[in-house]
Amino acid sequence: MTSHEFYMDLALQNAQAMKGQTDPNPLVGSVIVNENRIVGVGTHLKAGEPHAEIHALRMAGEKAKGGTIYVTLEPCSHHGRTGPCAEAIVQAGIKRVVIATLDPNPIVAGNGVRILKDAGIEVITGVREKESIQMNEVFNKFILAKKPFVTLKAGTTLDGKVATHTYSSKWITSEEARLDVHQLRNQNMAILVGINTVLEDNPALTTRIPNGRNPLRVIMDSSLRIPLDATVVTDQQAETWVFTSKNYDQTKVPLLEEKGVRVFVTSSENVVDPKEVVKILGEHQVSSLFIEGGGTIHAAFLENQLIDKVILYFAPKLVGGKHAPTFLEGTGIAEMKDAIELIDTNIIKIGKDFKFVGYPVYKHRGIE
Amino acid sequence: MTSHEFYMDLALQNAQAMKGQTDPNPLVGSVIVNENRIVGVGTHLKAGEPHAEIHALRMAGEKAKGGTIYVTLEPCSHHGRTGPCAEAIVQAGIKRVVIATLDPNPIVAGNGVRILKDAGIEVITGVREKESIQMNEVFNKFILAKKPFVTLKAGTTLDGKVATHTYSSKWITSEEARLDVHQLRNQNMAILVGINTVLEDNPALTTRIPNGRNPLRVIMDSSLRIPLDATVVTDQQAETWVFTSKNYDQTKVPLLEEKGVRVFVTSSENVVDPKEVVKILGEHQVSSLFIEGGGTIHAAFLENQLIDKVILYFAPKLVGGKHAPTFLEGTGIAEMKDAIELIDTNIIKIGKDFKFVGYPVYKHRGIE
Repeated sequence: MTSHEFYMDLALQNAQAMKGQTDPNPLVGSVIVNENRIVGVGTHLKAGEPHAEIHALRMAGEKAKGGTIYVTLEPCSHHGRTGPCAEAIVQAGIKRVVIATLDPNPIVAGNGVRILKDAGIEVITGVREKESIQMNEVFNKFILAKKPFVTLKAGTTLDGKVATHTYSSKWITSEEARLDVHQLRNQNMAILVGINTVLEDNPALTTRIPNGRNPLRVIMDSSLRIPLDATVVTDQQAETWVFTSKNYDQTKVPLLEEKGVRVFVTSSENVVDPKEVVKILGEHQVSSLFIEGGGTIHAAFLENQLIDKVILYFAPKLVGGKHAPTFLEGTGIAEMKDAIELIDTNIIKIGKDFKFVGYPVYKHRGIE
Repeated sequence: MTSHEFYMDLALQNAQAMKGQTDPNPLVGSVIVNENRIVGVGTHLKAGEPHAEIHALRMAGEKAKGGTIYVTLEPCSHHGRTGPCAEAIVQAGIKRVVIATLDPNPIVAGNGVRILKDAGIEVITGVREKESIQMNEVFNKFILAKKPFVTLKAGTTLDGKVATHTYSSKWITSEEARLDVHQLRNQNMAILVGINTVLEDNPALTTRIPNGRNPLRVIMDSSLRIPLDATVVTDQQAETWVFTSKNYDQTKVPLLEEKGVRVFVTSSENVVDPKEVVKILGEHQVSSLFIEGGGTIHAAFLENQLIDKVILYFAPKLVGGKHAPTFLEGTGIAEMKDAIELIDTNIIKIGKDFKFVGYPVYKHRGIE
């Protein structure tokens, strides 16, 4: 590890610690070093408050002069609520700026760096770039695509089954893994399931951890079969939005609306198009979507290249069964060579289970 | 780590290094320590040659006196080819014996310890017990059950699929994982597949690594559909045994035998019983069996509680498909709570893939 990486790691740790409290802003951390001593540390705490660099510069005071500033994201060049950070860095007499990653928006990326370079400051970019990008993966997606960052989650046996051939499914994963899922619900703005999950399990889809925030509940329900006494309709624990096709039960809409449920009639004739759901959610400023559906919903999202991240909890169990459902069904891909590959993969143990994380790569990426 | 564990680890490492060259004997290592110095190291090299303790005692010579001997397996008490090691230890004047695990055979377990204790020697057992048992898992099973240690292996996508819905399956896993499989073929005495694998893939089932040993090829083929020009019939690279039911094509037997293939007509009326295959293999001194079948063969062995170890290579890929085959089919288990749990689980990365290892626990274990 170089000293650049050492200081950038500290900046990343400070940034990461604010997870959940900077929305809609990204997580950013900063460290100022002068003559091999840390003279300032900063992190962005809350939208509307100073950026990380400003906090670090204030802490450093006069000691910023001639020093090196580390920042996990390119300093801004725009006159926003806290002024352009790039200019503040120039004025403080900083000699060198080390940046993890440029602004995710390609239209403004490089503008902050240009201000710094024009002022004769040395600029180094790309130190811990991957870590910084991953830390703000939700922000980066939403700022560019105006659509939520979509995470597919499944708890499965080692043989890919989410239930036995008799549809028995409780419980597959351990309590530790299920607690981890509640952390993820807490971090996502919306959670999505298909109508079959509602009909079979009648889930609450709430976050069952202390001080947990309940995500918006999104149900894909092409013919509006959702029961009026479903938990997500009656419990008032969080908002529930139901997406249906043109071929829906119109009499049910006022009854659902009366209970506070919002019904979106999409442009599809019979089966709701997941692309449209994601688009509408983005228009409503939903920046992150957590999919806990069954194999059909998962396949619909994956086949439409809508999944940004895959999280799987593998319970060390086998159930078998030619007709037992797996977490990814639909028609499926025809040729093994065309399988959707996942990169930046990682597996850790959680309780008895294994948690897999990976990012799908779509070979023939369509227009987003 | 205690000093006991430190010395036992060295004994285990020396034992493990002989993997493949001690058959039909187990792997055993030994270390002798006197006044905090290692004075002897021994390992069992080959059946018919001295046991590990004898080599260590010879190296230590006079310095064994008053010392501590570490041995990964209880010293023997029988007058075999190299005499009872327990008596040799007594005669050498050893003061303390540290043992990883007792003899796997419960009928003789403890006999070696008794000789040592009767001579006034301090005996400590259970240091790195799990590691020692696992190192000799094949030996331990075979010595007691007279049946092979059975390993189920599958290379699968993350969603449990071994082929797409169009039965495209090349390649799921990376070259690194496939090389690892060849190491496992090299370590197993026999490899087993079902007739469908022969008909669909026409595999050679040989070990494609330098100096690799080809396992005995076992084909389960209930009605003797194996083609006379199948690679396993014609290539002469290794022995091929075909297990069939009473309902088989009798005219084919002489044609197969002519090519050196051995045909076993089992007692089953229509479908070969995997229990009988395992029993017959055991009677023929096959101590380890590696199953690389499809989902139906795997389910048949697992449902009959015949699988001792499961090795899965997960490629970081998704293919989906309600009708795509998984590596574990059959009828399957009805209730999730009755799923077969795997213990002592571990996952490591091999190339892009993840290699999972675990040991099934059968709740209602039948008579073996």
